[in-house]
Amino acid sequence: MDTQHNADELFGKTGLTLPPAPVPLGLYKPALTVEGKYLYLSGHLPVQEDKSLIKGRVGLDLDMDAGKLAARQAGLTMLSTIKNHLGSLNKVKRVIKVFGMVNCTPDFAKHPYVINGCSELFATVWGTDNGVGTRSAIGVSSLPDNIPVEIEAIFELI
Amino acid sequence: MDTQHNADELFGKTGLTLPPAPVPLGLYKPALTVEGKYLYLSGHLPVQEDKSLIKGRVGLDLDMDAGKLAARQAGLTMLSTIKNHLGSLNKVKRVIKVFGMVNCTPDFAKHPYVINGCSELFATVWGTDNGVGTRSAIGVSSLPDNIPVEIEAIFELI
Amino acid sequence: MDTQHNADELFGKTGLTLPPAPVPLGLYKPALTVEGKYLYLSGHLPVQEDKSLIKGRVGLDLDMDAGKLAARQAGLTMLSTIKNHLGSLNKVKRVIKVFGMVNCTPDFAKHPYVINGCSELFATVWGTDNGVGTRSAIGVSSLPDNIPVEIEAIFELI
Repeated sequence: MDTQHNADELFGKTGLTLPPAPVPLGLYKPALTVEGKYLYLSGHLPVQEDKSLIKGRVGLDLDMDAGKLAARQAGLTMLSTIKNHLGSLNKVKRVIKVFGMVNCTPDFAKHPYVINGCSELFATVWGTDNGVGTRSAIGVSSLPDNIPVEIEAIFELI
Repeated sequence: MDTQHNADELFGKTGLTLPPAPVPLGLYKPALTVEGKYLYLSGHLPVQEDKSLIKGRVGLDLDMDAGKLAARQAGLTMLSTIKNHLGSLNKVKRVIKVFGMVNCTPDFAKHPYVINGCSELFATVWGTDNGVGTRSAIGVSSLPDNIPVEIEAIFELI
Repeated sequence: MDTQHNADELFGKTGLTLPPAPVPLGLYKPALTVEGKYLYLSGHLPVQEDKSLIKGRVGLDLDMDAGKLAARQAGLTMLSTIKNHLGSLNKVKRVIKVFGMVNCTPDFAKHPYVINGCSELFATVWGTDNGVGTRSAIGVSSLPDNIPVEIEAIFELI
């Protein structure tokens, strides 16, 4: 069986819990399927199980390891949206692109380390080939509600 | 008739006026059709009817409502590019993705409210389903010519 | 012969040298081909021939011309990734989108001028029609390892 066909099972083995599927903060959809082939995800925030957001700026309120955990939490929120939208993580063939934005101080330089928190989760769920796509990681001066990371993505569907 | 088939008419009813189709600030095309199916729009600026740009930083020179109006103006500039490129707003089937960047102070946290200025316009023109796609809204530390918002988008064509 | 069919030759005539194909700074792939039709490139850094990175903030450590050279160097690094991934620059049909992020001071306003360093290179290699696509240029408050520019792109393949 290909890795992606048991993504739900592989996620189950992580022992992690999905937060509730997020409610949009503005006029947009969390996910959109295009031509039945591509899945676009809106910028996702680090939503926790109690629906509260992880907040703060990396390099000021959070160190880089806390930032990485926030990126994993944004990744978990993305998985929650995918399950809500498609019914199963198994419907994803592979990651095309991840765009990770870190709300951080101007002197911060470890954006790839932070966004790996999300990328490692995706690699666990969909495998080290299909779960790893292209990516950009950048630093931004502010994010909605002062969250530390916002991550959007494009996937190819089975 | 589907909503998107009378987008030109729905826009006419808003009473809003399109600015002139924008001239690129650098070496790029404002719009590109891919495979006859997708329309990519470059980052668009808030161009006014007299071709001048709305300028200033949100949270410093502009409050969040002025920022939202600037986002609507960037949206109007996008519509102008679409009409210039395709001849009619009716050629758009739906919004796939909007990426909205707000030039704002580091303490600003209402990016979704600002970018709604563009999203509400798109929802009026193409409807609350097809006119609403995925989106990210982020804060950036500077934008070309100190404009308050820059917005890019991908659309699916009919 | 169409312009894109001799992109390798046109690049050769520039007298410029490609840096080594870059190694990812995190868990991602530098390039990914989707459905055999599209090429996604991760955010690329200005890698030099000795593998070192151009560093510094535009408007503080680098002026806008040095920033533009850094954008050209990021573009060269993208070409190196394409050659490594596809074997030849001739496999690219055209540029769909370039997203250029400039690490700069908040008062900097000439982002399009900086990112033209990359766009002019692409126009030389693939021609002024196919080598020029849509684009956004923005200012960000920090980038990995304090590089001045990071650029990602999507191409259509032949």
